[in-house]
Amino acid sequence: MKIAVLPGDGIGQEVTREALRLLELLELPGLEVEHGEVGATAYRNQGHPLPEATLELARSSDAILFGAVGDPSCDNLERHLRPEQAILGLRAALGLFANLRPATAFPGLEHMSGLKPEIAREIDVLIVRELNGDVYFGDKGTRVREDGQREGWDMMSYAESEVRRIAHTAFRAAQTRKNRLTSVDKANVLETSQLWRDVMIEVSAEYPDVELDHMYVDNAAMQLVKAPANFDTIVTGNLFGDILSDQASMCVGSIGLLPSAALGERQTDYGTFGLYEPIHGSAPDIAGKNLANPMATMLSLAMLLRHSLGREADAERIERAVAEVLADGVRGGDLGGSATTTEIGDAVVTKM
Amino acid sequence: MKIAVLPGDGIGQEVTREALRLLELLELPGLEVEHGEVGATAYRNQGHPLPEATLELARSSDAILFGAVGDPSCDNLERHLRPEQAILGLRAALGLFANLRPATAFPGLEHMSGLKPEIAREIDVLIVRELNGDVYFGDKGTRVREDGQREGWDMMSYAESEVRRIAHTAFRAAQTRKNRLTSVDKANVLETSQLWRDVMIEVSAEYPDVELDHMYVDNAAMQLVKAPANFDTIVTGNLFGDILSDQASMCVGSIGLLPSAALGERQTDYGTFGLYEPIHGSAPDIAGKNLANPMATMLSLAMLLRHSLGREADAERIERAVAEVLADGVRGGDLGGSATTTEIGDAVVTKM
Ligand SMILES: CC(C)[C@H](C(=O)O)[C@@H](O)C(=O)O
Ligand SMILES: CC(C)[C@H](C(=O)O)[C@@H](O)C(=O)O
Repeated sequence: MKIAVLPGDGIGQEVTREALRLLELLELPGLEVEHGEVGATAYRNQGHPLPEATLELARSSDAILFGAVGDPSCDNLERHLRPEQAILGLRAALGLFANLRPATAFPGLEHMSGLKPEIAREIDVLIVRELNGDVYFGDKGTRVREDGQREGWDMMSYAESEVRRIAHTAFRAAQTRKNRLTSVDKANVLETSQLWRDVMIEVSAEYPDVELDHMYVDNAAMQLVKAPANFDTIVTGNLFGDILSDQASMCVGSIGLLPSAALGERQTDYGTFGLYEPIHGSAPDIAGKNLANPMATMLSLAMLLRHSLGREADAERIERAVAEVLADGVRGGDLGGSATTTEIGDAVVTKM
Repeated sequence: MKIAVLPGDGIGQEVTREALRLLELLELPGLEVEHGEVGATAYRNQGHPLPEATLELARSSDAILFGAVGDPSCDNLERHLRPEQAILGLRAALGLFANLRPATAFPGLEHMSGLKPEIAREIDVLIVRELNGDVYFGDKGTRVREDGQREGWDMMSYAESEVRRIAHTAFRAAQTRKNRLTSVDKANVLETSQLWRDVMIEVSAEYPDVELDHMYVDNAAMQLVKAPANFDTIVTGNLFGDILSDQASMCVGSIGLLPSAALGERQTDYGTFGLYEPIHGSAPDIAGKNLANPMATMLSLAMLLRHSLGREADAERIERAVAEVLADGVRGGDLGGSATTTEIGDAVVTKM
């Protein structure tokens, strides 16, 4: 059993450190934990945001715990050397096609949301975002046209098999929830979306117990503000998923609390191979100051234990401890509190 | 001076009718008003959602007042026959490249928003959306790949000149506001966005009085929930603009009140050629029941008078009357009131 830990940049270092304290407490027999570099940190030390050694480490593990990447000092590097390429590269190289992004209100924290508390309180949506295709990974480039003008271009596309496999992930996820799945697309404009919609409908025949509906992405962005509680499970493409899942997490109000999983097709001896990361970024402004909230990373570790290591009880143990610490009023700066990164770590460790 | 009126489908008929009552009141000398069919209505009567005669009418006018298109009965038609093709076709054929979508809170109505009233109350953002390019109008199709799979694809692109002209529109608009412009893109992933960003920076040199910043679209979707009042003017591409402007209008809370303009390059004798429409849709569920709020269309007419006919005073007269009627407590069902379409029309007419 091997976990690769890739803390990355900024607060990524601090938040993974606290999450690992919980992992140690669990004393999983035969567990190997190995660290690797990614992002600006890796670029500085090894000349590339996703060094070959890190990729090898990731490939040889059962699961990856990822911190965050991003550093303003890299803004002017060529695209393939920027920190973001670490996460995009891992998703592509490891076939991490299924991004699970739960956005669920935390009792007592609904006032942190920009939404009205009575609306925010009810949010419990799982966004299943396709992570290996779409305009993210199509051909792209800049060319000079015949008339001398520069033009930037990116190919958007989805093949049947890509839609089909994320559809199965989403329908199965909906079955563990309220059996309602909303597929978000822009089929009134995009052929990519029309194929997406057609395949979703085809796959739905295999899940008669799940109610499937379709929504245009512009409408989905509106409904997430107006009545987010109406959503149960959402499935959507890479680009729309990027936008909507960030919007949804802000509707919950505490992005310092939200975890995510990116699952691949490979089955390990204990579950499904995957990468787990908090949805927040590297937050360079507060990095190294012991100010970051490590809870999203702790909850990402819980997802890792559940999905990749088959340790449901341990996952729940972490989730319960985090919830109890929150209920005790221990809150980081992101939640209007003053608890430091290590204080939050201490509190969760004590609770466990 | 000629205005083409294209009421379209569903409540489009009712809301344009009430707006035209205000236009009559203004008694503009030499004004010609001519009606045309679009959308499902045009498809039923003439076999096409954007008949040649309607396009001719639009071309020969100084401005277009558009209601709404869309009808569930058309969902299974081939793409080129669906109602939405009317609006997409008009934008393309008439070169309507600049979509202005103001989202401004209405005093006393902030409780209609899903956002907290203290956040909603402060919203005053103008979204300038490019409307003639991007993945909307690139090549697209469905093909069968060598491995036998279907694949849907759409080409996303922007050429320098397309970005440049919308940049000028946006910088000029920002100059009439708080001189702050946020350009929204996804330059960390898309080459189209990288070119967009590069050109925005180039054009910004001509507007030293405007402060330009850049934001990724996923972050923009978060900030519109968290702190929408921080935005002054936003400029973005067709696809991101579709999503963010709908999200922003829902943040304001009263989509029955929000107008929009789609401006072309052609100058008329009185201003800029453009198409004006409420941002809400055809609302088939309440169509024909005298329940729709015509205020968004009235305010769209005000934009028409301002931008295409150079009648600022008349535009303000309409805007003032609508604001006063709202202040009097006359509210449609969309705002939790019970005033009918014609009652709201009567109230605004009386006020004027
Ligand atoms: C960093 C960036 C490339 C990435 C994405 O767009 O996928 C991020 O926004 C995310 O959602 O994980
Ligand atoms: C009807 C649809 C094609 C259109 C768009 O996506 O542009 C609409 O959503 C809009 O924003 O005007």
